[in-house]
Amino acid sequence: MDALKVKEALQHRKLIDVLLNPNLHADLVLKGGYFINVVTREIYEADVAIKGEYILMVGDVKDLIGPRTTVEDIRGKFISPGFIDSHMHFESAMLTCTEFSKLSIPTGTTTLIGDPHEIGNVLGVAGMKAMIEEAKTLPNRILFTVPCAVPDAPGLETSGFDVTAKDMKDLLADPYVQGIGEIQSFSNIKPVYEHAPELIDDLVAAVSYAKAIGKTVEGNAPGLFGSELAAHIISGGTHVSCHETTTKEETVEKLRYGVSVFMREGSSQRNMAECIRAITEEGLDSRRAIVVSDDMVPADLLKYGHMNDIIRRTIAEGIDPVEAIQMATINPATHFGFKDVGLLAPGKRADIAVISDLMKMTIDQVYLAGKKAADKGELTLEIASYIYPESVKKSVKRKPVTKDDLTLKAVGSRARVRAIEAIPFQNLTGGSEFTLNVKDGFIQPCLKQDVLPLLVIERHGRTGKIGKTFLHGFDLKSGAIAESVAHDTHNIIVTGTNYEDMVTAVNRVIAMDGGIAMIKDSKVVGDLPLRIGGLMTDELTGKEMSEKVEELSRLAKVELGCGMEVPFMHLSFWSLVTSPKWKITDMGLIDVDKFEVISTIV
Amino acid sequence: MDALKVKEALQHRKLIDVLLNPNLHADLVLKGGYFINVVTREIYEADVAIKGEYILMVGDVKDLIGPRTTVEDIRGKFISPGFIDSHMHFESAMLTCTEFSKLSIPTGTTTLIGDPHEIGNVLGVAGMKAMIEEAKTLPNRILFTVPCAVPDAPGLETSGFDVTAKDMKDLLADPYVQGIGEIQSFSNIKPVYEHAPELIDDLVAAVSYAKAIGKTVEGNAPGLFGSELAAHIISGGTHVSCHETTTKEETVEKLRYGVSVFMREGSSQRNMAECIRAITEEGLDSRRAIVVSDDMVPADLLKYGHMNDIIRRTIAEGIDPVEAIQMATINPATHFGFKDVGLLAPGKRADIAVISDLMKMTIDQVYLAGKKAADKGELTLEIASYIYPESVKKSVKRKPVTKDDLTLKAVGSRARVRAIEAIPFQNLTGGSEFTLNVKDGFIQPCLKQDVLPLLVIERHGRTGKIGKTFLHGFDLKSGAIAESVAHDTHNIIVTGTNYEDMVTAVNRVIAMDGGIAMIKDSKVVGDLPLRIGGLMTDELTGKEMSEKVEELSRLAKVELGCGMEVPFMHLSFWSLVTSPKWKITDMGLIDVDKFEVISTIV
Repeated sequence: MDALKVKEALQHRKLIDVLLNPNLHADLVLKGGYFINVVTREIYEADVAIKGEYILMVGDVKDLIGPRTTVEDIRGKFISPGFIDSHMHFESAMLTCTEFSKLSIPTGTTTLIGDPHEIGNVLGVAGMKAMIEEAKTLPNRILFTVPCAVPDAPGLETSGFDVTAKDMKDLLADPYVQGIGEIQSFSNIKPVYEHAPELIDDLVAAVSYAKAIGKTVEGNAPGLFGSELAAHIISGGTHVSCHETTTKEETVEKLRYGVSVFMREGSSQRNMAECIRAITEEGLDSRRAIVVSDDMVPADLLKYGHMNDIIRRTIAEGIDPVEAIQMATINPATHFGFKDVGLLAPGKRADIAVISDLMKMTIDQVYLAGKKAADKGELTLEIASYIYPESVKKSVKRKPVTKDDLTLKAVGSRARVRAIEAIPFQNLTGGSEFTLNVKDGFIQPCLKQDVLPLLVIERHGRTGKIGKTFLHGFDLKSGAIAESVAHDTHNIIVTGTNYEDMVTAVNRVIAMDGGIAMIKDSKVVGDLPLRIGGLMTDELTGKEMSEKVEELSRLAKVELGCGMEVPFMHLSFWSLVTSPKWKITDMGLIDVDKFEVISTIV
Repeated sequence: MDALKVKEALQHRKLIDVLLNPNLHADLVLKGGYFINVVTREIYEADVAIKGEYILMVGDVKDLIGPRTTVEDIRGKFISPGFIDSHMHFESAMLTCTEFSKLSIPTGTTTLIGDPHEIGNVLGVAGMKAMIEEAKTLPNRILFTVPCAVPDAPGLETSGFDVTAKDMKDLLADPYVQGIGEIQSFSNIKPVYEHAPELIDDLVAAVSYAKAIGKTVEGNAPGLFGSELAAHIISGGTHVSCHETTTKEETVEKLRYGVSVFMREGSSQRNMAECIRAITEEGLDSRRAIVVSDDMVPADLLKYGHMNDIIRRTIAEGIDPVEAIQMATINPATHFGFKDVGLLAPGKRADIAVISDLMKMTIDQVYLAGKKAADKGELTLEIASYIYPESVKKSVKRKPVTKDDLTLKAVGSRARVRAIEAIPFQNLTGGSEFTLNVKDGFIQPCLKQDVLPLLVIERHGRTGKIGKTFLHGFDLKSGAIAESVAHDTHNIIVTGTNYEDMVTAVNRVIAMDGGIAMIKDSKVVGDLPLRIGGLMTDELTGKEMSEKVEELSRLAKVELGCGMEVPFMHLSFWSLVTSPKWKITDMGLIDVDKFEVISTIV
């Protein structure tokens, strides 16, 4: 029995004393507000009494007010359980859990379910553990759902470490690990079944073990229907979520199959408005409808908020405010089996959002385990910066590259090549063929056709391989961009108008121990060191990161003439082999549907 | 990792093969029916494909039909998940789990949550384990919630064995034990807190342990509101149910506090119609509204049904049929955290009720783990009788009594005594005083005032004590009735118009190793041996038991002139010290609110 449970028992015993002994009183009473009940879907006037970390009672609590009780007048405001983000990646914000939380807590989010999939790809179990250890120091509730299969596509890409079923016992033993995260390696289950059935055995083993010890498993089934959806659900142990559902029809099918549909509404992908039509138009019971962010950038957290913003958008789609709040409180709590958060009732953790405007979801105050954590958007709780150990900051294991390493050799004067087609604001890509000039023995970029080299350089010290292909549609006018954020194995991805700048960009990323570099005429135009696994930094606050990213985006446009919006984000997804059509990894050009490497030269 | 989970994993792996390999097919397809979706609260046409024990897929399953697939035409009928009875006592039917199941399965109930509280009071952990072992042999899903405090009121009554927090590790380790059952010792939490606070420590310890290993805890909070309700909920670990809620106001308060309200609608107590008004009149979200039977007698199972009858009654109160079915499927599954039953979706257990008339809840077919178990009300699955070991059949450890043992001595010619007031169809009682004659040195019954001796004789071989008081309102004209069913410690309770017949009745119960005996003029008018713990029998089927009980009731009326309906049931509850006002135990007359023994002679 872990120490957390014993502590809860001791504190619960004290609550009983306070409730039954007339000489004992609450520490804090929130008085005069409208209580949002997410179990009964009601709003009514009720006071909330708190002792230590827990709710004592809701309703008429006057007998619990003593001479030392702090009474907070919240007349005219609404009391809600703190919000839960059921699926998010800290890595997407390139911030530590600490800096992310400092932005997120004042918006009313009190529980985060992080998926440390990215750091897991770079640093394996040790990397995920480093992040979990950080989270344990924080006052908000942070739990993790961990990957059981890294890399996503063994044989088609090289991760820093592999994670398989055999690692689950160790990882899942941690009480801060909620379960197994998105099983995206099995999103496209049919090709996996046909080409690598042993991966399914490994998955079923990991999933069964997780279920047997009371942990959960999350799915990831974009575009799946019928028997493939059924097979995916069963692979995940039958009680799964999907956070990549994008249409009303998919939402209806998944809810009917018992899947918890995590309607995504983050910084990059916004699917809630479409998914929610299953509720607003078809009138389905919304108990398994849940809203999540998946990926949030600091600028959006600062400007719009977090789950409060997603709830506001959900209300704007025609959902009753209490029902929308259910989707970020009791619904996720029920999905994950949380017994102590997601509703405000006797003995539950006092994680509370006090809302001053229900339709605008303006957060007035936030309480974490009974302590005031934020007031009018400002953090009031002292949260120290967290510095990661050096061991996770030396993840780029690669000597500098030369021009000869990067060029794609060919004979003759022209070559017919395959190129990945960029699609704005999508993870998925198309694929086309182009004819390019060959000069000095290698294939040349062609700005006129907007066809540039796109390479992935293995940087985990395992194979040293470099995958080479071309990219169409990035609309870069000069220079090169390289970064060590390249989903999901996070090797170094680079594109550019000339090989000289590409070499400099890659070597700059290597020299920084990871990050983003923009080069023009062999000079650094802008960069961002991301020393934690090459993905995140503990050297910037959320506000600083927000400003830095804005500046880099501006420089990409102004200095390199890049016509594609948020170029770093797009670049980072062209190596993601779990979404169609063609992608680039250190192994070469990948045909995702065929689950194989194809030649760039036709 | 237990064998059940490994088996599920292996079978799930096979399902994936069938779904993705076009050469493999379903075993069974239910075709052409209306699918009741308890997640989305919809009804639509959909077929259901089954492989082995599990659902493969729902919807268009034609690709899963092969030459060896059995296709069952259910056009015009409705397909529902099998029903869950979330709180019931097998002992109330005086039948084995096997004979109860034989009556219950054809009515569509596929999961039973038994509370072996009664046998636990008589035989302790060993008795509960004997029942759990029986349940493991059955094809329906039977899980148990076990008591963590036996007897209910230590110091006020004597059970056969004590059960405390220290027994939980052993009991809860069994995968068929769902968690801790109704914590009724703490229903009246304030007196316990004031008189025996160490019991609360013991409870919190047991509850915390249960939660830590992923087990659940059920509450029992009749009539509690405000701080006492809050204290009860916290004692039970905050995620509790209550199956003794009797008013709309209580239902509203408990649902608002996050309690799963188990609306009871069994043979003896019917509270659903009142409780459901919280939904029909107040419009509360019904996700934590659940219907249960608590106690069912075989005659009702045979005549009206089980959960299907309760669902029908719920519909009659104005609840939409699918919402009513949710209250016996997905709602309880969610409460208990069941991942494999309560809904029909890929990979879930194929526990299915096919309904021919939705408003009448007429059950056409029942499937248990993919196998047809009942057809048109008749069991089609072979279920062998189960014979309990002799070790549980020798539970009456008491030598015969004499008249001298039973009489209440007094001096003088008259005595002022306290008497328990019988209230028809209620567990609770009143209390009054009467003046009775004293003759031959002991207090005499008085038929004129309808005041009869009421005694409880310890029969567990522990103290040999006999508690003596009087009873008003039973309206017995001659003879005596004794039984070893006497809640909750199940000593022998007896009442009668004369001590001679009472002696004979008690000794008859002892001679039978437990049961019910009616005596008139020293002769047996009728009896029912209940050799399993003095509570149940493995010698009668459900139908035989139903006939036997009907015959005994008739004889009580005709031969003994008893004016009270179902006299055996009423008699058995006058020793229940967890409900007010006065009760009789082997320790004497109990004032329940004062939590103490009071004198019968004023």
